[in-house]
Amino acid sequence: MSSGIDVAIIGVGLVGSAVIAQLSSVSPLSSLHVIALQNSKKTLLAEPGQRLALGANGEWKESLASSPVDALSLDELVNKLHEIQAQNKRHIAVVDNTSDDGVASFYPLFVQAGFSVATPNKKAFSGSLDLYSHILHSAMQPEVLAKGPLVYQESTVGAGLPIISTLEDLVITGDKVKKIEGVLSGTMSYIFNEFSPPGGSTRKFSDIVTVARANGYTEPNPGDDLSGSDVARKLTILSRLIPELVNALPDGFTSVDTQSLTPAGLRDEKDADTYVKRLPEFDAEFDELRAKAQANNAVLRYVGVIDVENKVIKAGLESYPADHAFATSLGGSDNIISFTTQRYSNRPLLVQGAGAGADVTAMGVVADLVRIAQRRG
Amino acid sequence: MSSGIDVAIIGVGLVGSAVIAQLSSVSPLSSLHVIALQNSKKTLLAEPGQRLALGANGEWKESLASSPVDALSLDELVNKLHEIQAQNKRHIAVVDNTSDDGVASFYPLFVQAGFSVATPNKKAFSGSLDLYSHILHSAMQPEVLAKGPLVYQESTVGAGLPIISTLEDLVITGDKVKKIEGVLSGTMSYIFNEFSPPGGSTRKFSDIVTVARANGYTEPNPGDDLSGSDVARKLTILSRLIPELVNALPDGFTSVDTQSLTPAGLRDEKDADTYVKRLPEFDAEFDELRAKAQANNAVLRYVGVIDVENKVIKAGLESYPADHAFATSLGGSDNIISFTTQRYSNRPLLVQGAGAGADVTAMGVVADLVRIAQRRG
Repeated sequence: MSSGIDVAIIGVGLVGSAVIAQLSSVSPLSSLHVIALQNSKKTLLAEPGQRLALGANGEWKESLASSPVDALSLDELVNKLHEIQAQNKRHIAVVDNTSDDGVASFYPLFVQAGFSVATPNKKAFSGSLDLYSHILHSAMQPEVLAKGPLVYQESTVGAGLPIISTLEDLVITGDKVKKIEGVLSGTMSYIFNEFSPPGGSTRKFSDIVTVARANGYTEPNPGDDLSGSDVARKLTILSRLIPELVNALPDGFTSVDTQSLTPAGLRDEKDADTYVKRLPEFDAEFDELRAKAQANNAVLRYVGVIDVENKVIKAGLESYPADHAFATSLGGSDNIISFTTQRYSNRPLLVQGAGAGADVTAMGVVADLVRIAQRRG
Repeated sequence: MSSGIDVAIIGVGLVGSAVIAQLSSVSPLSSLHVIALQNSKKTLLAEPGQRLALGANGEWKESLASSPVDALSLDELVNKLHEIQAQNKRHIAVVDNTSDDGVASFYPLFVQAGFSVATPNKKAFSGSLDLYSHILHSAMQPEVLAKGPLVYQESTVGAGLPIISTLEDLVITGDKVKKIEGVLSGTMSYIFNEFSPPGGSTRKFSDIVTVARANGYTEPNPGDDLSGSDVARKLTILSRLIPELVNALPDGFTSVDTQSLTPAGLRDEKDADTYVKRLPEFDAEFDELRAKAQANNAVLRYVGVIDVENKVIKAGLESYPADHAFATSLGGSDNIISFTTQRYSNRPLLVQGAGAGADVTAMGVVADLVRIAQRRG
C-alpha cells in the first residue's frame, strides 16, 4: 500500500463504529493510523508521534466517553490536527461519518488545511453548486496540486457498491454517458419490491411502510424517505461527475424534478406517528397505480434517472416490464444502477447489491482511505 | 490527476489501437505521454524529452510502420526505456496488449527495472504460481517499495467491468469472500443465451456456434472457446486475489476443474473448419442437456465458480432456474459476476455488462494507467 496516513474520524455512530472496526481489525490497513475521534460530546486526540489505541473490542468507545476534552469546534480540531501533523509528518485524511450540513460546509477548510476528506455524507456534494465548486477548487486542481488533498465519496451512492468509481472511470477514459437509471434508495427498493413484485401482490402500501419502519429500514419519519430527497441527492452527486451536467443543478438536489410519495393530504403532517397512522387513508391511490402497472404486466419502482442528452434529471415512480432487471433481479433493499454509454450502448453496465447498512457503507469509506493512502501516504 | 507518467505500449492490434485512441483523444489524459510503440515488426521510440506524436486520426500507424527500428527484443526495449527515463525523469508504465506468453514472462524484469505494468493479457496471472509470485515479489511489497512499480490487471476479467477492483476492495477492507460465481466468457455467454433462453429454444448448438464464429464472436477455432480454458484462466486470476486461495492453484489454470464442451469425439480435431463442420454430429448430446434443464424450468449457462470455504474452483455447464439473474438478466455476450461475502451475504453484489470488445477492454487498461499516474506520476 504505502507508508501510511493519519486519519481523523468525525462521527462514531453505526457507520463510524464500523469504519473503526475495519481499520482496527484488518492487518493490511495497519498503516492507516487513527489519530482523532470526535462525536457531538467529546474529542479524543492521539499524542504526537502516537496513534490511538482503539482496542480489538471497541475499547475506543470508553476512551472517547471518558476523554477530558469536550467536543472541539471544527476550527479547533483543524488546529490540533496541524499540531499532530507537525510532529508526525504524515498526510491526514478526515472521515466525516455524520450526515451533518455543518460538517459538510467545513470541507473547503479541511482541504485548504491540506487534509483529504473521505465521507459517506451526501450533504456537501448534493447541496449548492457553490459549496461543491468550493470543495473542487480547493482539492482537485490536478496540475497545480499534484500532491494536494483529495476528496473521495464512494459511499454517498450505493454505499460500498462500485458506482462513483465506475462512473469516474467511464468519464476519464472518454466514454460518453447517455443515461443513468437506478433504484438508489434501499428503503424505496424494499417498499416496492414488496408492494409490486413481478408476480403481483395485494398487500397494502401502508402495511409495508409500517413493517419497514418497525424493522428500522426507514428514517424515524418514513415521510423523509417517501419524499424522494435521498434519491434526488444521489442523482445530484452522480450528475456532477458527468461533464455535460456539471452545472445543471445550481441549487443541488432541490433542483431535481422529484416526485414525493407522501400523499398530498399528508404533506403538512410533521408528527411521524400520526403520519404513519393516517397513511392507510391513501392506500387506494397506491392500489390504483399498482393495478394499472399490473394490467400491463409491469411493476412499480421508485427510480432516479439521468438522461444526459435531454438534460433530464428526475426521481419518481416508474413502471417496468415484469421481465426487466429492475423487476426480476432486485430483492431486499438492493440498489441497482444501470449505465448506458457510448461503449455500453446496446446493453448497459449494471451494478447491484445492498445499498445501505453500516458495514457496506464503512467498506466504501475505508476503500477510499486506502486510495488516499496509496496516493498520499 | 498528477504530473503524469510515460507509457510504453506493446501490441497495437484492436485493443492496443483503442488504448492509443483513448490516450490521444481524451484531454484529462494528456499527462500520460506515450513514448514507445511496438508490434511484432517494428518499434517506434520518442526522442528523449519528447512524446510520440500519435495524431488524432491514427497517424501513429504509418509512423510505426515506417520506423527504421525493427522490433526490439524486450531486453533491448528495457534498455531504451531506461535511456529515455534518464532524460525525462518520469515514471514509466508498460502496457502489454498482446496475449503472448513471452511478453507475460517478462513482467518480472519490467518490474525489476522499475516500470509499472498495466495489461489485459491473462497469461502472467493465470499461469504458474511461480511466475505470479515472481511478479508479486518484484512489485507489491508495500512497505519496502512504497514508491515502486505497480501491476494492474483490471481488464483480464470482464474487460472494463469493475471486477478486479471490487474484489480487491472487499478483501482489503476485511470482508470474507464466500463464493464467486459468474458467466465470465463473452463467447460462452452468447452461445448459451441463444441456445438456452429462459423461454426455451429448439435451435441447434452447432448452428449457434457457426453463427458466432461467422460474426467474429469466437476464436478462429471455436474449440479454443469451448475448451473452457478462458474461464479457467479468469478463475485463476480471481482466486489468487482471495487470501485463502492464493496458493490453491500451483500450476495455474490447468489446475482448475474445467469441463470442456468439445465433444469427446472431437478432442483430437485440430483443423478449425473440420471441427465446425463435424459439430452437428454432436447436437443430440447438447439437445439432451437442454431438454433436461427445460424440464426443470431451468436454463444452461457455462459458469465459473469459486467456493472459498470448500476450496472448489471449477468451470463448467450448470443449470439455473429460469428466474435467476443468470437467466433473465443476461443478453448478447454479457458477462455477469456475483460476489457472495460476509457483508453481501443474503443477496450478492452483482456486476454485469459487456465483457469483451476492444473499447471496453481498453477502458480498463487506461483506467489502470490513470491509477498508476495518480500513485506514481
